[in-house]
Order: sequence, then C-alpha cells, then structure tokens
Amino acid sequence: MTGIKRHFENVTVLGTGVLGSQIAYQTAYSGFPVTAWDISDERLDTAKNSLEQLAAIYEQEVDGAAGGPARAALARIDYTTDLAEAARYADLVIECVTEKLALKREVYVQLGRVAPQGTIFASNSSMLLPSELADSTGRPDRFLAMHFANQIWKHNTAEIMGHAGTDPDIYQAVVGFARQIGMEPIEVHKEQRGYVLNSLLTPWMDAAEYLLMDGVAEPATIDKTWRIASGMPQGPCEVMDMIGLATIYNVNTVSGNEKSRAAGAWLKQHYIDQGKLGRTSGEGFYKYTDQRATGEAG
Amino acid sequence: MTGIKRHFENVTVLGTGVLGSQIAYQTAYSGFPVTAWDISDERLDTAKNSLEQLAAIYEQEVDGAAGGPARAALARIDYTTDLAEAARYADLVIECVTEKLALKREVYVQLGRVAPQGTIFASNSSMLLPSELADSTGRPDRFLAMHFANQIWKHNTAEIMGHAGTDPDIYQAVVGFARQIGMEPIEVHKEQRGYVLNSLLTPWMDAAEYLLMDGVAEPATIDKTWRIASGMPQGPCEVMDMIGLATIYNVNTVSGNEKSRAAGAWLKQHYIDQGKLGRTSGEGFYKYTDQRATGEAG
Repeated sequence: MTGIKRHFENVTVLGTGVLGSQIAYQTAYSGFPVTAWDISDERLDTAKNSLEQLAAIYEQEVDGAAGGPARAALARIDYTTDLAEAARYADLVIECVTEKLALKREVYVQLGRVAPQGTIFASNSSMLLPSELADSTGRPDRFLAMHFANQIWKHNTAEIMGHAGTDPDIYQAVVGFARQIGMEPIEVHKEQRGYVLNSLLTPWMDAAEYLLMDGVAEPATIDKTWRIASGMPQGPCEVMDMIGLATIYNVNTVSGNEKSRAAGAWLKQHYIDQGKLGRTSGEGFYKYTDQRATGEAG
Repeated sequence: MTGIKRHFENVTVLGTGVLGSQIAYQTAYSGFPVTAWDISDERLDTAKNSLEQLAAIYEQEVDGAAGGPARAALARIDYTTDLAEAARYADLVIECVTEKLALKREVYVQLGRVAPQGTIFASNSSMLLPSELADSTGRPDRFLAMHFANQIWKHNTAEIMGHAGTDPDIYQAVVGFARQIGMEPIEVHKEQRGYVLNSLLTPWMDAAEYLLMDGVAEPATIDKTWRIASGMPQGPCEVMDMIGLATIYNVNTVSGNEKSRAAGAWLKQHYIDQGKLGRTSGEGFYKYTDQRATGEAG
C-alpha cells in the first residue's frame, strides 16, 4: 500500500449542523486539530455556540472531561468559510452537508478540485449510498461513508460503508481513525441503505406505527410492552418522538413498502398537521412539559 | 352485568409446558389455588419438577420470595389428568396447550362440556387469534386471549385480546386478574396476530436476518450496533438465539412476506440443518459455553 497515511494529522468537517458539530467536537476532544467549514459566518457563529454547549455537556456527562480537557478541545478547532483553506492540510474530510443528493454532489465536485490528492473523503449521509456520490468526488477509491449517531458521546458507533470501488486499505484506515476518536467501528460489508442501525430501527418503528394506525394499542401501551420485554429504556413511540415525527414521516414517504407510506400519511394527518412533531415541539405521541415524557398519550 | 365474578377464587391451567408451568406457579405465588392439568401422569411429574425449580428461581430472583413464600406457592397447586375435575371449580381456565389449531379446538370442545357455565376461558396462544377458537368453546362471550412472556417473573406482561364477541365485562375482569397476579396488563383493542410484542419483535428480527442473509454485517456487529444505540442489553441475534432458531424459522415460514420466507430458508440451511438451534443447543449465531454468549460468531 502506498500513499495512505495510517495516522491522520488534520481532520476537516464540512457542515456544522447537529451531527457536524458533534463530530468536529468529538474529533477535537480526541486530540486532533479540526477545521470546521460552513457556508457563512452566521452559520459558523452558531456552530461556535453549539461547540461551547457541547463542551459543557461533556464536562457533565463524559468521565475525565471536566477540569480542562473539554475546554482544551475547543482550542483545537479552527473555523472557515473557504473550502480550499478548509481542505488544504486535511488527511480526512468528513462531510455532513444537508441530506440532498444534488447539493452533496456539488460540494464533492468543488472539494475534489481543492483538496490534496491524498485526502480521504467520508460522508456522514444517513440515507444516500456512497455509490450515488462516488464519481462526483474525483477520487472514488478514497471515498466511503462513515455514519455517526446523534449524541455521539453516548451512542458511539461509526458505521463505515464503502462502495464497490473503495480501496480496502482506505476503508481500514478509516476504521482505525474511528477507534482513535473513541467510536466503536461498525463494519458494513456491502452497500445497504440505512446501514445496520436504521435497517433495524425503521421496520421496528414502522410496526409501532401500524399498531397505532390500526387502532390496536395506545402509544403508552406499546412502549410499556417493549420496555418490559426487552429491557430497553424506551419503546418505539418514545424513540420516534425523540427522533422527530417529521423525520419519521420523511422516511415513510420514500419507503418501498405501501403500508409504510400509508403510515406516513396517517402520521401527517394526526400529528404533524396538528403541530405535534415530537419532543422538540413539546408534543408528539406524548406531551412533554420538561425533558421527560409525562406518560400521557398525546 | 350479571354472572361475572369480579374476583376469581380458583384458577386452572391446561398444559404444563414452559409457559404453562410459569403461569401456574406465578398464579399460585400470588395467592390463588391453582389446578394444573395435563394429559399424562408423566407430564405432571415433569411439571412438578419444573415447579420446584421455579420456586428455587423465585427464591433467588424475586424480592420477598425466600424464607417461605416461594415454597408456600407449591402447596397451593393441585395436579390432575382429569379435565372434568380440573374444570369443576374453576372461575378461570388458562389454556397453554401445544400451538396447534385442531388440538386446541378439540380441547375447548371437551372443556366447554365439563366446565361450569360461568367459567371464563383464556388462551395463551402466541400465534392464533381468539376468533379462530371462539366457536369451539361453546361460550364465545366468555373467551379471550391472555398472552404471557417467557420468564414471567421478570417479563411481567399479560397481553389481553378479545375477539369481536368477547363480553367487555369479561375482558375487564381478566384485566383485573392479570393485575392481581402481578402482571402489567397490555390491553390489545383489536385482534392482531402476534399481539403487540411479537408485532414489534418479528420485523425487527426479520431485519437482522436480512442483514445476515445479504452479507451486510456479522451477528456480533449487528448486536453491538443495536445495543449501543438503544441501551437494550441484547441485540436481535442474541434475542433470536435465546428464543431458539427453530421458532424463528417457524415464524418465517408462515410469513406473508416473501423476503421473510427466504430468510427462513436461509436460516434452515446455514444454522438449523447444522444443529445450530440457539442457546439450547450450545450454538446458534453465537457459541455458548455456559449461560452467556461468548461474543464469537457461530
């Protein structure tokens, strides 16, 4: 193998939304210099705020983060709106741009022009396949997907999935990087929409939607049944409220399964159109007065 | 409402397999006199052994069971192979006969002849619908399903599901009884094959089978992904090994979903035909040297 750095020195994160901010922070917290790129100074200001909040969360929730390390991570992050500058020294670029195929492809075309030849690109896309983006990167062999979960400091999986043209050594180098930033690498051997986690979550949440739509049981009953049987702290309706019902609806609408699309329409009519979007709106399947479910069906 | 006892005095359990024994014991442990019926003295001898073992498990695992109560429960259980004797004083008969439609119907025909008119019948069937059995009971209004989970002392759900002709007062009386024996009653409002729990579990386990069959990920990877993301102590492959792969296969083969049936055929070829049946056979998706998964994929 030639030309593949086994240890990355500089990491760049494109896009500073919820996941992008968490990935940038976790990478910096793990000791890497990080460059955070976004399209405007306004967005970067928002990102700086988010990263400050993440440092406070780590101080509270992550062992060893208080008393210096959480703050020190912030000092390892640079910010820029200049893509060429962002890419100049990057060994790895993690792309967390909005989940739109055409937009991501455009970003990869531009990135491919300005990044050094050796730079590896990894997409955090939830729903797209690497093969749908690979040719736009100009370096398909150095391109793959690395998908993180929300609340990266607690749910520390990195699902790593190449396309047919990904260099196996590049794949393994990214697996090694995932370990270095404290992730449990999940090696996905073939392209699979939804990777491992969403491939399991989606039919499980669909099944709960069907029980609701068909009038078989209430949200609180469904959740209680699952919690008692599984030992999992939350049932599927609680999880859907947390993810957000608009996201659930979006996934339903692109499903190849007719019943799943019908469930999406049902969800829109009974919840989304009434402003019940889940935790963030204060009501979904449950009403939320604070950060916890009241147990009262919405 | 007339003729419905709100408090049951005597409970009979038909069939003393894994679940029948647990239901008989839990009911006796909750203070009810219980009659356990099975078709032969040999089966009843086996049942007595199982119930002794359950008393030992309760002494270890159930708060307050040690030092008397667990043993006292055994003394509240009578045994008989005579159906008329088993039914004579029963307010409630819980049927836990082998999961075959024709057999269950035959038992209900005989039971309906010998049981007092007021006796309520509840079926613990996992897969059948009450409407498929109701007419054989001779008292469809006093018939419903009450479905328990394995390891009843830990997974204390009782899914209660009537058919269209079940008397709502009977339904509520059985809900009340479930609470009296320490169960969390799960009120299932409409007939649903698989109730709530299996309606959620089946597509979730199917999804894991698809990932395996399609070569996307290994059992240990799938389970790890789910455990980290969900906080549940087990992933789907661990759960399938616990349930037993022959049972998973049986559920696959009767699925209306073509891919689920294909997964069943795959499971048979790669596991069942090789004697890998899950925990009970010492190997399934994992190898078991003791009571725990080694984490080594089978």
